[in-house]
Amino acid sequence: MTEDDEVTAGSGASREERRRDPSRVLALTDGVFAIIITLLVLDIHVPELMAHETLGTAISDVRPSFISFVIAFIVAAMQWVGHRDLFTLIRYIDRGIIWLNLLTLFAVCLLPFGSALLSRYYEDPLALRVFGLILMGTAVARTAIWAYATRRPSLIHEPLDRASIRSGLALSVFPVAVYIIAFVIAGVSPRASLAVYASGPVLYFIAITLLHLVAPRGSAERQFT
Amino acid sequence: MTEDDEVTAGSGASREERRRDPSRVLALTDGVFAIIITLLVLDIHVPELMAHETLGTAISDVRPSFISFVIAFIVAAMQWVGHRDLFTLIRYIDRGIIWLNLLTLFAVCLLPFGSALLSRYYEDPLALRVFGLILMGTAVARTAIWAYATRRPSLIHEPLDRASIRSGLALSVFPVAVYIIAFVIAGVSPRASLAVYASGPVLYFIAITLLHLVAPRGSAERQFT
Amino acid sequence: MTEDDEVTAGSGASREERRRDPSRVLALTDGVFAIIITLLVLDIHVPELMAHETLGTAISDVRPSFISFVIAFIVAAMQWVGHRDLFTLIRYIDRGIIWLNLLTLFAVCLLPFGSALLSRYYEDPLALRVFGLILMGTAVARTAIWAYATRRPSLIHEPLDRASIRSGLALSVFPVAVYIIAFVIAGVSPRASLAVYASGPVLYFIAITLLHLVAPRGSAERQFT
Amino acid sequence: MTEDDEVTAGSGASREERRRDPSRVLALTDGVFAIIITLLVLDIHVPELMAHETLGTAISDVRPSFISFVIAFIVAAMQWVGHRDLFTLIRYIDRGIIWLNLLTLFAVCLLPFGSALLSRYYEDPLALRVFGLILMGTAVARTAIWAYATRRPSLIHEPLDRASIRSGLALSVFPVAVYIIAFVIAGVSPRASLAVYASGPVLYFIAITLLHLVAPRGSAERQFT
Repeated sequence: MTEDDEVTAGSGASREERRRDPSRVLALTDGVFAIIITLLVLDIHVPELMAHETLGTAISDVRPSFISFVIAFIVAAMQWVGHRDLFTLIRYIDRGIIWLNLLTLFAVCLLPFGSALLSRYYEDPLALRVFGLILMGTAVARTAIWAYATRRPSLIHEPLDRASIRSGLALSVFPVAVYIIAFVIAGVSPRASLAVYASGPVLYFIAITLLHLVAPRGSAERQFT
Repeated sequence: MTEDDEVTAGSGASREERRRDPSRVLALTDGVFAIIITLLVLDIHVPELMAHETLGTAISDVRPSFISFVIAFIVAAMQWVGHRDLFTLIRYIDRGIIWLNLLTLFAVCLLPFGSALLSRYYEDPLALRVFGLILMGTAVARTAIWAYATRRPSLIHEPLDRASIRSGLALSVFPVAVYIIAFVIAGVSPRASLAVYASGPVLYFIAITLLHLVAPRGSAERQFT
Repeated sequence: MTEDDEVTAGSGASREERRRDPSRVLALTDGVFAIIITLLVLDIHVPELMAHETLGTAISDVRPSFISFVIAFIVAAMQWVGHRDLFTLIRYIDRGIIWLNLLTLFAVCLLPFGSALLSRYYEDPLALRVFGLILMGTAVARTAIWAYATRRPSLIHEPLDRASIRSGLALSVFPVAVYIIAFVIAGVSPRASLAVYASGPVLYFIAITLLHLVAPRGSAERQFT
Repeated sequence: MTEDDEVTAGSGASREERRRDPSRVLALTDGVFAIIITLLVLDIHVPELMAHETLGTAISDVRPSFISFVIAFIVAAMQWVGHRDLFTLIRYIDRGIIWLNLLTLFAVCLLPFGSALLSRYYEDPLALRVFGLILMGTAVARTAIWAYATRRPSLIHEPLDRASIRSGLALSVFPVAVYIIAFVIAGVSPRASLAVYASGPVLYFIAITLLHLVAPRGSAERQFT
C-alpha cells in the first residue's frame, strides 16, 4: 500500500473518492468489449455471385471470416466475464489499476486480428504463436490486476483471506500456462497447439465449476462466473 | 433455484449483490446494439459517377445497401426494445443469464450480415434461411432467458403469476414459430417466405397491443413495449 | 394521456417505474451518437504516394473526406446537444417516446452518408436534397418527441406553461422550415441551398442565445444548450 | 461567472441540476474514446500469401498498421486518463464546457488518421506537422476546459487555491509547448521532431510523478493519474 492510497481528511477525502471511482474505467472497458465483439462481423462480406455459381458455393467462401468471428466472440466474451468478476472485488482504483486495465484493453483490441489470422492460417506455427501472444497478454494483465488489487486492502471491498487470493491467482495464472504450452508446441505440431487453444474455454468452465463446488460459501472464488 | 442463488450472510451478502448486479451486462448489451444499429450505414457508399451518368442513376445502386440497413435497423430496434422489456423484470443475474445474454448478442451481431444477404438475394431460399436462422437465434435466446429467469424467484423483482409467465413465454415463442414457417416455405415460395418475415414486426405490434388491452392492470404483460 | 401512463398501485407501481425509466434509452442514444461522430474518420484514408508526388499534393485528395467528417461531426454534435436538452425535461418514457427516439436514431444514422454525399456533390441538387431529407428527419422526430412529451404531464419532471411549450415547439419546428427552404431552392440554385444549410448552425446558436436572454429565469427555454 | 450559472429557486433548481449534470457528456466521451482506441485495429489486415511467400515475410507488411495502432492507442489512452482526471474536479457543466468537450472529441477523432499518417511517412515534415496539430488540438481543448472550469466556482466540487489552478494550467499548457517545438523542428530535422513526440508520454509521466511527490496532500495536483 503506497502513501497515495490513504484517504486524506476533509474535503480532500471526497476528492479522493471521485478520483478512485471505477465507473468510467468500466464504461470505457464495456465500450471496447462491445466493439471487439461486433467488429469481426464487418469481415463477413456478402458474396458476389459469379456466372454459373450458386449462392451455396459462394457463401462457403465466408467460412474463414465466420470462424474468426466465432473465435473472437468466444474469447472476448470470456475475457469480459472474467473482467466483470474481477471488478466485483475492486472498490477503488488508482493509477496502477487504470494503466493495467488499459494494458488489458490493448491486448483485447488485438483479438480480432489474432483470430482472423488464426482462422486463415491455422496450420502455420507463426499464426498460432501470434494468437497465443495476444491471449497471454490478456491473461498476464488480468493476473497483474488481481495481484495488484488483492495486496492493497484499501482498493477492495472486503479483505480476502490468503487461500482466496492464492486460488484467484492460480485461476489467472492457469490460462497463461496453457497458452505458453500451446505457443511452444506450435512449432512441433500445429494441430496439437490448436487443440490446446480450443480446450482453453472448456478447461476454464471446468475449473470454475470445480471452484464453485469446492470453495466455502461466501468466499471470493465462489464469485467467478 | 440452485444453491448459488441464495444470498449468503454477512459481508458475503454484499459480495453476492455485486456479483449479481446486471448493470454491466446492460452496458455491454446497449453498446452492442448501438453498433449493430449503425454498422450497416458503412455499407452505403457514396457512388462514383461514370462519364455520362447522373447522380440519380448512380445513387439507385445503393438501394440494396439502404434496404439492408433499414431491415437490420428495424429488427435490431425490436430486439433491443424486447431486451429492455425483459430486463425490467430481472433484478439479479447469475452465470446462466450472463451466458444466455451473450448468446443473444451473438445472434444480434450476425443481423447485419443476414440483412445484407437478404437485401441482395431476396429470391434465393438459402439467403432467406440464413436470415431466418439468425432471427430464430435471437428469439430462442430470449425465450431461454424468460424461462430461466421466471423460474428463479430470487432473480426477478416481483414473483409473476402463472398466467403472466405463460403469456410472456408465448410472446417469446411466437416469433420462433413464425420464423420456422418462413424458413420451411423458403424452398417452395421465396416470396411467401419474404412476406412472412415482413409481417413479423406488424404481427408483433398487434400482439403487444392486444396484450396491453387484455391483460389486467399491473401485470407483467402490460410492460411490454 | 392514455390509460397506460397512470401509475398502478402496489408492487405494480415499481414495475411501472422500471418500465418507464429512460436510462437505457439514453445509453443506446449516446452509443449511437458516439459511433456516428467517429464513423466518418474511417473514410479519411492515408494517401498512397505515386512516383514524383509529394505528400502535400497527395494529402489534398482527402479534402472531401475531411469536409464530410467536419459536416457530420457538427450536425451530429448539435443533434446530440439538442437531444440532451430535450431529455432533461423528460422523467419517464413510454412506448411512444421509445419508438420516436428510435426514429431519431434512424435519421441520425444516415448523417454520415448524407454528409459524404454532400461533400462530393455539393453542386448537385439531388445530393443537397438527400442531405436535407436526413436533417428534416432528425428535426421532425425531435419535434414529435417534444409535442408528445409536453402533452403528457406524467412523463415530464415539472409541468410546463403554455408559453414554454410553444417556444420549445417553435425551436424544434424552425430547423424543419429552414431545411424545407434549402430543399426547395436546391433545384434553382445549389449554392443558395448550400448557404442555407451552412447558416443552420449559426441561426440555431443565435436563436438559443436570444432565448437565454429573453426567457424568464427558471423557464424551460433557458435550459437549451 | 455568468448569470446562468446561478441556481434558481424552487422547481427550477432541480431543472437546473439536470441541465448541468455531466453524466451524458461522460457517456458520449467514453464511447468516443472506446471507438478511437479500437478503430485502428481495423487497419491491421490479415496478409494474403503470394506464391513462395512465407507468413513471416507477409506479416511484416502489417508493421506500419500495427505501429499506428500502438501510437493511437497510447495517445488516446493518455487523453482519456487526462479527461477523467479533469472531470473529477467538475461537478456541473454548462454550455461552454459541453462545446469545449465536443472540441476535444473532434481532435480525438482525428487521432487515428494522424497516427496512420505518421506511421507511414514518419520522415516527412508534413505528416509530423499534421500529427502535431491534432495533438495540439487535444491539448488546447483540455487547457481551455481547465481554465474555464477553475474560474467558475459554481461548476467545480471544491474551490481550488491559486497554486493548484496554476500548476494544473501548467500541466495542460506544457504538452502544447512540446508539440509546438516538435511542429517547428519538423522542417529542419524530422527525426528530432519524431523524438520529441515520442518523449511526450515519458515527460508527462515524469511530470505527474513529480507533482505527486511535491504537491501537498489532498491538493488537486495529487489527483492526476
